[in-house]
Amino acid sequence: MSQDSANTLLDAAKVLDQQDPLKHLMACFSLPQGCIYLDGNSLGPLPVAAKQRGVEVIEQQWGQDLITSWNKHAWIELPMRVGAKIAPLIGASPEQVIACDSISVNLTKVLSAALHIQQSSGASAKRNKIISQRDNFPTDLYMVQGLSEFLGEERCELVSVDAIDIMQSIERYKDSAAVLMLTHVNFRSGYIHDMQKITAAAHKHGILVVWDLAHSAGVLDVQLDACEVDFAVGCTYKYLNGGPGAPAFVYAAKRHFANLKQPLSGWMGHKRPFAFAHDYAAGEGMAAFLVGTPPVISMSVLDAALDVFAQIDSTQIRAKSISLTQYFYDAFTALIQDDAFSLVSPLEQHIRGSQLAFSHPHAYAICQALIAKNVIADFRAPDILRIGFSPLFLSHENIFESVIRLKDVLDTKLYLQSEFQTKQAVT
Amino acid sequence: MSQDSANTLLDAAKVLDQQDPLKHLMACFSLPQGCIYLDGNSLGPLPVAAKQRGVEVIEQQWGQDLITSWNKHAWIELPMRVGAKIAPLIGASPEQVIACDSISVNLTKVLSAALHIQQSSGASAKRNKIISQRDNFPTDLYMVQGLSEFLGEERCELVSVDAIDIMQSIERYKDSAAVLMLTHVNFRSGYIHDMQKITAAAHKHGILVVWDLAHSAGVLDVQLDACEVDFAVGCTYKYLNGGPGAPAFVYAAKRHFANLKQPLSGWMGHKRPFAFAHDYAAGEGMAAFLVGTPPVISMSVLDAALDVFAQIDSTQIRAKSISLTQYFYDAFTALIQDDAFSLVSPLEQHIRGSQLAFSHPHAYAICQALIAKNVIADFRAPDILRIGFSPLFLSHENIFESVIRLKDVLDTKLYLQSEFQTKQAVT
Repeated sequence: MSQDSANTLLDAAKVLDQQDPLKHLMACFSLPQGCIYLDGNSLGPLPVAAKQRGVEVIEQQWGQDLITSWNKHAWIELPMRVGAKIAPLIGASPEQVIACDSISVNLTKVLSAALHIQQSSGASAKRNKIISQRDNFPTDLYMVQGLSEFLGEERCELVSVDAIDIMQSIERYKDSAAVLMLTHVNFRSGYIHDMQKITAAAHKHGILVVWDLAHSAGVLDVQLDACEVDFAVGCTYKYLNGGPGAPAFVYAAKRHFANLKQPLSGWMGHKRPFAFAHDYAAGEGMAAFLVGTPPVISMSVLDAALDVFAQIDSTQIRAKSISLTQYFYDAFTALIQDDAFSLVSPLEQHIRGSQLAFSHPHAYAICQALIAKNVIADFRAPDILRIGFSPLFLSHENIFESVIRLKDVLDTKLYLQSEFQTKQAVT
Repeated sequence: MSQDSANTLLDAAKVLDQQDPLKHLMACFSLPQGCIYLDGNSLGPLPVAAKQRGVEVIEQQWGQDLITSWNKHAWIELPMRVGAKIAPLIGASPEQVIACDSISVNLTKVLSAALHIQQSSGASAKRNKIISQRDNFPTDLYMVQGLSEFLGEERCELVSVDAIDIMQSIERYKDSAAVLMLTHVNFRSGYIHDMQKITAAAHKHGILVVWDLAHSAGVLDVQLDACEVDFAVGCTYKYLNGGPGAPAFVYAAKRHFANLKQPLSGWMGHKRPFAFAHDYAAGEGMAAFLVGTPPVISMSVLDAALDVFAQIDSTQIRAKSISLTQYFYDAFTALIQDDAFSLVSPLEQHIRGSQLAFSHPHAYAICQALIAKNVIADFRAPDILRIGFSPLFLSHENIFESVIRLKDVLDTKLYLQSEFQTKQAVT
């Protein structure tokens, strides 16, 4: 690179940052000094409000107010309150979303509910297939496999197809598919499915659609109601910055509210949980998806973390996400010469989530060396360097600096040092 | 009462406290000034170590070390590490217990695993019944009902019987029962089942046994391995003081490790979770019960909370629990004259958990008035005042004082004030 092109890029970054309507939100996060965090798509960083709430829920609510906090601090309402805060970010009404359990557990609930809807109506008794994508995030496939082993293939059979064959599979299994279950944004490549088109195509043949929003919620302009989606799940520890392993969320279309049956019928989902009745009777609407006592500390921290989103909307977030991602790609292309990199993510912005994935034979070591330079990205097997662009706490100047540090890792061959080659348990 | 008998009781409390081998542990808890907390059986109070860890996991581990904490602070091992700390308190080896999800979700896992064991062997294909107790904690019954609706009654049918009929039901359903599922200590009365005798009786007929230890773990001398129990679940926010809604735990007998199949087959339970393989392959032993990403903040707080138990054993805890409970009963009998109270708990110590339940027509208001006097107990519908005796942070002198304050509530008829009559959402 010439120093000129770097200077031009840096100037451009500064201009973009000045015009950024979300720049005031950077102060809402507590990030380590000097760290450029490009892994908010794996674990969002700590919002200042979440830090304060964490201390408050532990020291005051638990420590001082003890059991009375269920009423006094409305712990009992947390799943609904948190859900209501997530709802506007995914195009839903407040009563359509609740926070609880993990994505995996929630998938079992919505898949069971969808199978129940399909199989309780006589006409579609033969609908037993759950179509999904071969390179979906594995837990989504595993949950179907688990359900299938228990219910038997005659009631639940996983059909996993390549992304390119999804539309064709809808046609092929139009009479036997119960559910189409997809992840909106692919966890490796960042490819975005066309939610509206795919949902409509499935509905045309009576197939219900479940979307996993793990890499969408809080960063894309998701419109579940407008797309007439049936069910959705998502996690809150990525772009929603809810903290490690924070509870997941579930969404259902209102038209299904009267018919939400799922096997994890725990006491929190009971119509009157404190009546301690002998027989289960599901609560109204989304309450039917509640199971056990929620992890109040994690859930409270998440509740506070979501307040960062209170004054902004998804279109602003999406616009900045595109801007950061495109800026990285342009700077990368201008400043880095390494033919071993290959872009795995789509080139086109409108089908690309808030990340860029590059394959590289040394992806793991490059990622580790970057971390040593205080640029945190992540590695996904077998050979992918995955870089996430969280719009709320990153500036274009941060992105410029991250490309400079990456260039340094490559130019100095830092990644060839043995310390960066050894794989750790979690990668 | 005479002032004499109160003085005698107080003197006795002081002597018992001096001799208490666990008295040094009271300093491990952070309780509100002047509060006598008799609700540790509902929500244990805040251990000082948990408070410190809460701040550390939020500010340092999440805030500063971010995604690297999965390795650096071994977040990935939390379910096993926490399980290993619980194991000695319930008579199990470290590898037999993991912490995850809620009791309700874990019940579905162990019930499914037990049904699989029963129904995958040809000989017992007709075993479909899950025997339980009519006044079990409702969620236990609800989870069976949910499973039953999904699997069909031919594979899973709830039979709930009265406590007095359990042994007889084992005989009656000896050929058709798959599982006997009981809560060790009744949540209302505190009655303790004879785990050894009942488990042996069920095993004699090939029935597997699941125990819910919600009101046992951390306060009774539970011996799961010695009693040859098949599966157990329990919660950690009562006597284990893990924090509101802290993750639950699961136990399995080693003889079942090779055959642990359950439908919630999430990625954390995969043999190699970070290989992102297409097909589910369960991890070894208890890992098969892991599902999704754990709520790390709640789980870390629990991890620290359990360190209070490191230097003591269950027999010491049980001895102090009996002493506190008996002391309350004796002081109550000596000092309180109110014929409307009726003891719902057993009189005999060896079949009584760490609580006393009294029915009283004004139980709810009395409980509220007691709270106003800074004695926290709880109310259970329809008319029960439930008083819990957590041995780690209570002294006999605390118990004496609580009886004095209860006497005052009754003598002054404080509970008749209207402010104590109105029921709140969570009671």
